[in-house]
Amino acid sequence: MRTVFWDYETDEFKMIDQRRLPGVFEVLAYRDHKSVAQAITDMVVRGAPAIGAAAGFGLALAARESASTSTPGLLADLEAAATTLKAARPTAVNLAWALDRILETVSPSILGRGIWGENETPDVIRQKILGEAQKIADEDVKINKRMAEHGATLIDDGDTIIHHCNTGALAAVDWGTALGVIHTAWEQGKKIHVLVDETRPRLQGARLTAWELEQYGIPYDIISDNMAGHFLKSGEAQKCFVGSDRTAANGDVANKIGTYMLALAAHDNDVPFYPVVPTSTIDMSLAHGGLIPIEERDPAEVLDLKYQGEQVAPVEANARNIAFDVTPNRLVTAIVTENGVVYPPFDVNLKKVVSQ
Amino acid sequence: MRTVFWDYETDEFKMIDQRRLPGVFEVLAYRDHKSVAQAITDMVVRGAPAIGAAAGFGLALAARESASTSTPGLLADLEAAATTLKAARPTAVNLAWALDRILETVSPSILGRGIWGENETPDVIRQKILGEAQKIADEDVKINKRMAEHGATLIDDGDTIIHHCNTGALAAVDWGTALGVIHTAWEQGKKIHVLVDETRPRLQGARLTAWELEQYGIPYDIISDNMAGHFLKSGEAQKCFVGSDRTAANGDVANKIGTYMLALAAHDNDVPFYPVVPTSTIDMSLAHGGLIPIEERDPAEVLDLKYQGEQVAPVEANARNIAFDVTPNRLVTAIVTENGVVYPPFDVNLKKVVSQ
Repeated sequence: MRTVFWDYETDEFKMIDQRRLPGVFEVLAYRDHKSVAQAITDMVVRGAPAIGAAAGFGLALAARESASTSTPGLLADLEAAATTLKAARPTAVNLAWALDRILETVSPSILGRGIWGENETPDVIRQKILGEAQKIADEDVKINKRMAEHGATLIDDGDTIIHHCNTGALAAVDWGTALGVIHTAWEQGKKIHVLVDETRPRLQGARLTAWELEQYGIPYDIISDNMAGHFLKSGEAQKCFVGSDRTAANGDVANKIGTYMLALAAHDNDVPFYPVVPTSTIDMSLAHGGLIPIEERDPAEVLDLKYQGEQVAPVEANARNIAFDVTPNRLVTAIVTENGVVYPPFDVNLKKVVSQ
Repeated sequence: MRTVFWDYETDEFKMIDQRRLPGVFEVLAYRDHKSVAQAITDMVVRGAPAIGAAAGFGLALAARESASTSTPGLLADLEAAATTLKAARPTAVNLAWALDRILETVSPSILGRGIWGENETPDVIRQKILGEAQKIADEDVKINKRMAEHGATLIDDGDTIIHHCNTGALAAVDWGTALGVIHTAWEQGKKIHVLVDETRPRLQGARLTAWELEQYGIPYDIISDNMAGHFLKSGEAQKCFVGSDRTAANGDVANKIGTYMLALAAHDNDVPFYPVVPTSTIDMSLAHGGLIPIEERDPAEVLDLKYQGEQVAPVEANARNIAFDVTPNRLVTAIVTENGVVYPPFDVNLKKVVSQ
């Protein structure tokens, strides 16, 4: 079963509700694009590849929702829907990438580069959009498997690997990015152990990565994010693997908050640090990571926590909730893509894999 | 009201139960040293200065518990009680420091350096022990105030300060170490803002530091520990202040888990990083931080967490729970003690303040 998928029997878009795992496994069905945008904001689905695919299917819903019988009317509705979906989350670039790619197939004019889509009938356009969304989802799985093959060459038998956030099947359509690499190394027979950053504030590591590792039978321990430095210094961890929501042209990596501090600790102890990055998340239009927009979310996501049965923070407490940070390329050992493992200098070498 | 104190009306040792704050404010009473040792292990009381004082009062309880009518018998009971109390937590050096200091006043022979205590009556010894425990507690408050005066000179009007764990009145007998510095700067009229590391796993920042800052009226925001790097990089934070459970002779600092990663992020962004360290926590017998014993605690302390009403980790999950880490001296800007602010080279300059 995929994390996000179109159900052709019911003609609905469906997603695993990741907010409720590991306690409750539930699949939610969507029939309109605004609910999909809200679900992306609310993190029913998260992980750059998964939200790209979800946005694509959201656009397919928008095409079906539009009552327009004229092609220009439908295209205008699609353009509005794409704007809504893109605004759902600002940092991950896959969202915009997937939507632009789909719009491009039906109407380059929306992107200011042509007119031919306007000669097609609304129903043909509706079919094309769903077809392209499905293609993005299918390709995502293939891309993840290729990344995993490349990345697994970096893992040695006996390695203990620190992993941040969730980058597994739940973060993608299937298989995953960084956790996909770990999963593939395990299936190759390498005896590995994973130290799972719990990944505050939303605890995707302790909730989702631990749950996935249980399914795969890969041994692991959950750690609080701030323990990673100790394990890197003590020599207990030999590799770090993380995902990325957006990578700049120079190899600066925006990823889940806490990635930067993990990369610093890896670097300070000469432990290799590998982001696993589908080329769809590399934004060659941004010269460096300082240009990547960083989402700040509701403080309640930091504060709504019970520890040993007691509410943690004072009821009147304030919090800040930064969702991502940027790891400078000097802390990155190599970037794993579906087109191969890229080493520094990234400003030169990323171009070679992205243009393929 | 002090965090730990002897109640002379009821002849009991009392402590604020820090496990239940901020939801419940409760003072627990103790009548035997084994319960005090268990309370230190269970973290009813925590913070190096506070557990030193608590251990001292625990020894006073042991003196009262001992039924021995002979001085050698009482001293043997005290020695056994001190061994029990020292084993309650391994990393903080104050525990052993306070107990050795008290035993020294009544019987250097226990420490292998004399015999005169054996000529005193058991009741005189009982009184002396309580007197010395009280003296340690009283001195702790004075020392903290002196540290706070020295440390406050490092804080500028308008600073945003990142603070890790709890180092306030609750971590000491009163006033506190790093948070005492911040409190004093605030009382001097400096407009400051505190970013409170929540401090996983036991969340002393979100629970205790936030609660103290509410009492003092100092503005703050709670952040998850892994966000500190972002705020240091963005220029929003200008200083870091932390405590220490044990500092080695070369200035390597053992403190609450996560301190090392915070120090790395401060260093990477040229933000000053200041441990606030009573000289009783400086262990000149250890050449470097690698020799400091690091406590590993029950994994349940990492796993017993509910987020937005749901149990976080899978029920079958494993965890590691490292309580402290060591920050190498190269990441430390200066160490604040009650005898002044100490700058590198620490192996030379710490000697000057410790021997005073």
